[in-house]
Amino acid sequence: MMPHSLTRAQLARTIDHTLLKPEAIAEQIDRLCDETLEHSFFAVCVNAMWVERCAARLAKSPKSPDARPLVCSVVGFPLGATTTAAKAAETTEAVRNGACEIDMVIPLGALLGGDAAYVQRDVAGVVEAARNANPDAMVKVILESRALSDSQIIAACGAARAAGAAFVKTSTGFHAAGGATVEHVRLMRANAGGMKVKASGGIRDLATALAMIDAGADRLGLSASVAIVEAASTNR
Amino acid sequence: MMPHSLTRAQLARTIDHTLLKPEAIAEQIDRLCDETLEHSFFAVCVNAMWVERCAARLAKSPKSPDARPLVCSVVGFPLGATTTAAKAAETTEAVRNGACEIDMVIPLGALLGGDAAYVQRDVAGVVEAARNANPDAMVKVILESRALSDSQIIAACGAARAAGAAFVKTSTGFHAAGGATVEHVRLMRANAGGMKVKASGGIRDLATALAMIDAGADRLGLSASVAIVEAASTNR
Repeated sequence: MMPHSLTRAQLARTIDHTLLKPEAIAEQIDRLCDETLEHSFFAVCVNAMWVERCAARLAKSPKSPDARPLVCSVVGFPLGATTTAAKAAETTEAVRNGACEIDMVIPLGALLGGDAAYVQRDVAGVVEAARNANPDAMVKVILESRALSDSQIIAACGAARAAGAAFVKTSTGFHAAGGATVEHVRLMRANAGGMKVKASGGIRDLATALAMIDAGADRLGLSASVAIVEAASTNR
Repeated sequence: MMPHSLTRAQLARTIDHTLLKPEAIAEQIDRLCDETLEHSFFAVCVNAMWVERCAARLAKSPKSPDARPLVCSVVGFPLGATTTAAKAAETTEAVRNGACEIDMVIPLGALLGGDAAYVQRDVAGVVEAARNANPDAMVKVILESRALSDSQIIAACGAARAAGAAFVKTSTGFHAAGGATVEHVRLMRANAGGMKVKASGGIRDLATALAMIDAGADRLGLSASVAIVEAASTNR
């Protein structure tokens, strides 16, 4: 997909409109939902305590169910260092509360210690929990790519693919090492097989967003979504 | 308790020797346990994926059960924005795996939105889960004090107290706003009632550690624990 051929509406449908900072209050979460409906973003991405609220607010929209934005939530976030059982329990509850997409964080310490099999089991536990709660629910696997070497990124893509994930995702946006890079998106795209790629973390303007799509990102996790699509609408 | 009267051994018993960065690998977790045994720190504080490993390693120590360091784990960490049910499930599993202390993060967004009752219910859910799994297990409530106003800190202390927590704790160590301050420890001490106070986040030298104890901290969460007690041993 070439960014230069993207319409504003197509760009909006690549965006998970995201608010994950712990200080977010209910009114900000409501505004996130309203902006998502107004601009037809693909989903809202929120912490699990807000999933039920978002699902209820989005369901009030007059849009047809097909066009209605989804609720995406995060699991084991942002450190990825809870147990697989805890991640599975979090996932079950988030999906039951209305989340259709689950962005989970891999156990970085296991991967860095050379145990990619642990990572695969961890992802598989979340995928199974999501499917059991809703067969249509999908799991995105956050690699925190800036904390990994290229060979570790490739190993993590392999583990996510083998475990049945739908997406690999670059970053939490909370790691001191930073967020998505074009190089990492390209590397993940080359190793994602049938999975899609989500770029997130530090994507703050239209040019960067389009560069990520150009590099192979199917989805973008953005906080500056409104400014970015508004910039697109004046450009094309 | 005046710091100037603290022996090195007493100082060591105030310390939760802490390694929470997501990149930590198994060998570093093992070393954390070994250092904790060698210096007689109060506990190791680790992410939940490592609790079982730490409990097994510490149990091999020849120390008597009374003198053996505990395993402390974290819940809803570091954002505090998972659901109460997810925090309770995490707690149950961590305690069953061998954690005796649970450091949970409050739902900051609820407190900042003025809903202290939500915070109290959230803490109560974790306290109940911990007690059901082990009647001796204790819960520490992380306020992330640098993200709060003084009146919000006081409200959070009240919620934690009413919910049956054992401790209030200043910080996760992961928030961009920073970690413990002497002023916040003093404010929390004044509002903790029968609870104890744990200071954590950014305490990197002996002088700062002693200042926290002087301000009313009963426990310290430290990563630089070994260097700090070794500095104490040459000073007194």
